[in-house]
Amino acid sequence: MTATLNKANFGKKDAGRDLAGLTLGAFPGSRKHYLRHPERPDLRVPVRAISQTPTLEQVGAATRTVPNPDVYVYDSSGPYTDPAAQIDLERGLPAARTWARPRGRTQMQAARAGEITPEMEYIALREGLRQPADFTLTHQHPGFAHGFRMPREITPEYVRDEVARGRAVIPANVMHPELEPMIIGRGFRVKVNANIGNSVVRASVVDEVEKLVWATRWGADTVMDLSTGPDIHQTREWILRNSPVPIGTVPIYQALEKVGGVAEDLSWDIYRDTLIEQAEQGVDYFTIHAGVRLAYLPLTARRRTGIVSRGGSILARWCLAHHQENFLYTHFREICEIMREYDVTFSLGDGLRPGSIEDANDRAQFAELDTLGELTRTAWEEGIQTMIEGPGHVPMHLIHENMTRELEACLEAPFYTLGPLTTDIAPGYDHITSAIGAAQIGWYGTAMLCYVTPKEHLGLPDRQDVREGVVTYKLAAHAADLAKGFPGAQARDNAISKARFEFRWVDQFNLSLDPEKARAFHDETLPADAAKTAHFCSMCGPQFCSMKLSQDLAGDLQAYMQEGFEQKAQEFRAGGSEIYVPAAAEAGADD
Amino acid sequence: MTATLNKANFGKKDAGRDLAGLTLGAFPGSRKHYLRHPERPDLRVPVRAISQTPTLEQVGAATRTVPNPDVYVYDSSGPYTDPAAQIDLERGLPAARTWARPRGRTQMQAARAGEITPEMEYIALREGLRQPADFTLTHQHPGFAHGFRMPREITPEYVRDEVARGRAVIPANVMHPELEPMIIGRGFRVKVNANIGNSVVRASVVDEVEKLVWATRWGADTVMDLSTGPDIHQTREWILRNSPVPIGTVPIYQALEKVGGVAEDLSWDIYRDTLIEQAEQGVDYFTIHAGVRLAYLPLTARRRTGIVSRGGSILARWCLAHHQENFLYTHFREICEIMREYDVTFSLGDGLRPGSIEDANDRAQFAELDTLGELTRTAWEEGIQTMIEGPGHVPMHLIHENMTRELEACLEAPFYTLGPLTTDIAPGYDHITSAIGAAQIGWYGTAMLCYVTPKEHLGLPDRQDVREGVVTYKLAAHAADLAKGFPGAQARDNAISKARFEFRWVDQFNLSLDPEKARAFHDETLPADAAKTAHFCSMCGPQFCSMKLSQDLAGDLQAYMQEGFEQKAQEFRAGGSEIYVPAAAEAGADD
Repeated sequence: MTATLNKANFGKKDAGRDLAGLTLGAFPGSRKHYLRHPERPDLRVPVRAISQTPTLEQVGAATRTVPNPDVYVYDSSGPYTDPAAQIDLERGLPAARTWARPRGRTQMQAARAGEITPEMEYIALREGLRQPADFTLTHQHPGFAHGFRMPREITPEYVRDEVARGRAVIPANVMHPELEPMIIGRGFRVKVNANIGNSVVRASVVDEVEKLVWATRWGADTVMDLSTGPDIHQTREWILRNSPVPIGTVPIYQALEKVGGVAEDLSWDIYRDTLIEQAEQGVDYFTIHAGVRLAYLPLTARRRTGIVSRGGSILARWCLAHHQENFLYTHFREICEIMREYDVTFSLGDGLRPGSIEDANDRAQFAELDTLGELTRTAWEEGIQTMIEGPGHVPMHLIHENMTRELEACLEAPFYTLGPLTTDIAPGYDHITSAIGAAQIGWYGTAMLCYVTPKEHLGLPDRQDVREGVVTYKLAAHAADLAKGFPGAQARDNAISKARFEFRWVDQFNLSLDPEKARAFHDETLPADAAKTAHFCSMCGPQFCSMKLSQDLAGDLQAYMQEGFEQKAQEFRAGGSEIYVPAAAEAGADD
Repeated sequence: MTATLNKANFGKKDAGRDLAGLTLGAFPGSRKHYLRHPERPDLRVPVRAISQTPTLEQVGAATRTVPNPDVYVYDSSGPYTDPAAQIDLERGLPAARTWARPRGRTQMQAARAGEITPEMEYIALREGLRQPADFTLTHQHPGFAHGFRMPREITPEYVRDEVARGRAVIPANVMHPELEPMIIGRGFRVKVNANIGNSVVRASVVDEVEKLVWATRWGADTVMDLSTGPDIHQTREWILRNSPVPIGTVPIYQALEKVGGVAEDLSWDIYRDTLIEQAEQGVDYFTIHAGVRLAYLPLTARRRTGIVSRGGSILARWCLAHHQENFLYTHFREICEIMREYDVTFSLGDGLRPGSIEDANDRAQFAELDTLGELTRTAWEEGIQTMIEGPGHVPMHLIHENMTRELEACLEAPFYTLGPLTTDIAPGYDHITSAIGAAQIGWYGTAMLCYVTPKEHLGLPDRQDVREGVVTYKLAAHAADLAKGFPGAQARDNAISKARFEFRWVDQFNLSLDPEKARAFHDETLPADAAKTAHFCSMCGPQFCSMKLSQDLAGDLQAYMQEGFEQKAQEFRAGGSEIYVPAAAEAGADD
């Protein structure tokens, strides 16, 4: 199966099998641009450049045309949105990391030794994204992160330092050269993970690659392959060879397949072999539920919803069947050795996370978190990059405690949360119940948000659910970036608001997170081309568009201010010293 | 046109014209129930009772059936969801307020005089909703409101006191007997408003009534009629006579229609007549932009998006054209007299709210807010109930300041916000960008949230957009109720999570905010009836459902804990005094 992209079949939905159903090509009004490193020509950092139409300014009876600059946005979609790229699923993506990737030495170890790796250089360019023109001429809110001072500038040295301290991770297995390096840490942009993976109910290798491309198209920064069905090794191979983003897995799922689904039959040997098999393929981070200790299981007995993590419940079953401590806990140092060989990053799983509002922030959850802290210490001793998974279902007023406890117990290792969902009563809308929690905890310092789709609790998400889930999480992550004051985050908001105020509809669509939906919604009621420059939409109609009314005011307001200014000047000349208040403000009532 | 509901045509989608396209009838598994006041048989407070199937408990080889109680939920949908009600749009709803409604005396004045009105009695029953069985046997999180202690119990005296202090309002025009009384204040459940109204682009009286019924079906607590097109009086009459919820309007829209759309031609006389006309019809609250003072207009000149409130921009235009102070400001006491006569509630409009992240919390916005505080003082002197409208577009870290400033400047009068939207970059998803802000500000103390639909900024919402917007805001309001610790709010979460954990799928659907969508999503992949009791869904499949795994653990866990308990008892008998740690926790590694 080869999906070759060329001009002839580009963008054709019916090209079908050859393209394996992939959605390819640039977003409307966008082109792929590569940032270059002045001294390292091998570093080619992708961004998406969104072009804009000019502003039409009325000067008397004439119209003046003022160009608007391209807007650069962070781009996780890989070569699939680059029309110049040759996509061949069987060969996989060309290497983005063309440099040497030493085995047995992690980014953390390099960072501690003062070494700035090519990945760090790459990330500094990527996170430090500068706009081609200065949007900051307009007002930018300072923002504040909780207990963390955002950098003014993302330098390679800053990246190195954060990785050395363990406050950020670069998930990048040496065996995954296709990867475009990225970073996860609270001093950087908040990231979004999307889950894919087949189950017994639906299983196709090509489907999974298509989901990968689709999820990253909408902005997923990492993808977890949670496959549990057949062909698990083969599926993962296809995903990895075609993935520009880090791939995470939960190795216990495959280990369980190997023992025919009987949790009691799991063993360290089988698990170890699975880890090596997956690390060898290039998996970038492993979710490992080493904190589900036997002693904590009784703490879940009176819960409303027991243990809702799959990995957690598998390990709980093993522990109870054997009356023994979790073998991931007892073999943790040996796991570290494997991780170090390939520089796989730990994502220490929260197997005891709450699955309902009632169970939030309970003893089981925080007991496990303390153990994850202990394991973080061990992992760091071994030089392994580590992040910590978090909940789950948490009402808003209990979210902050999750963040502060994690920072304290786990020494500021990056937090990676699932939502959290802020209420249980809205199945069908859990991308939203959870985006509310995700935006908040992102602001508080969570480094990566695992998306939730509208199908959560109800069924396997389809393409539209994945899109809805990813875009929802991108907007939550962006809201968090604004709130924590990530440098330059507000540029895109300023640009889109300028376009909106100037009725540059097409620019408004193109600058949005989902240009196709924005345009489709607009066109439902006003599809004609003329409406793309009209000074209203169907929401309020031409007479009641406040933006139009407000724009029309500009002249009157100018005149009024001019008059006020002249009056003030007169008063000043007459020796007045009051603070300027326009005279008309005191003029009193009309009648 | 008569829409008579009877058993013959009940629920038939094709009954068509006779039913005027209304969606009628109970939600699945639900019935209308009326709470009764022990001493006032005329008070009939509606709630929705959701029935549940029993829990099946495995006892050895036998199955024991344990019944689950009905769950009561607050119900704003009026008689339309009561199959016993006779709906006749031409005659309008029967009076819910059958008692005397004295003119010239507001709820606030009565409250201050120590009088508990029938509306207050009604509201105490409605807000104090008790479950028929005790859900609080399971854990309830305490929650906390910012600077406000939630009551333990909602008594009539508590309602009276909050209204007397001005911290809550009961929008209930004496001319609107069809209204089922409700309250807006931060010591009560967070409420949701939905906007309807025709514009030139789409105008039909029947459509608007249908939208009213539709919006309240999904949970809207009040509805604003923002009609600007033709037949504005007639449309409003139909809406009011058929509305069980308070109706709000922005009278300046109709006043503008009366002067042919020319803002400069507006005058106090025309506006006053419009107020009386609408008050006489029964409008329950008026948005009045009296804080858009001439002196503040220059503060908007350098904004990214100027003045984005329709009312605000109309008044700004008038002020600038006449170089005079806003006539709503200068005639404020006369407005109060009209409001008092009918007990119409003020919703003091935020005409200078920010329309973009860049403009959030700026001088124009807060200058107006201070004036709204001054007007609140005046309104209260005149005995008029008052709430304050708030933004808009605000990044998360600037939301809290909006709440604290409002409480301070406006003396704790109820805050009523539009969102706020926490980023500008996601048109098509602005119900979500704003639900993130709405949930937060609701937790901080905002009393009512004005919904935003997915079509915001793009076009006029259709039915599905209204549903999506209302449900999204209901979940945000509920998340806020949980977080601020409103008594009993968590009962529904506990019930749905219990149903979920026990694989009572139908109960999970029925207990959710949108039972139809929850069921449809589930059935997309597993439509068979058997799947409604299956211990898995298509998300993870039968082998990997963590809830199933967790349920299956129960026996093992029980045995383990029993063993640990026996061992502890032995240790205790042997004189041990250590805190209980299950023995296996120390057992060490397997191999």
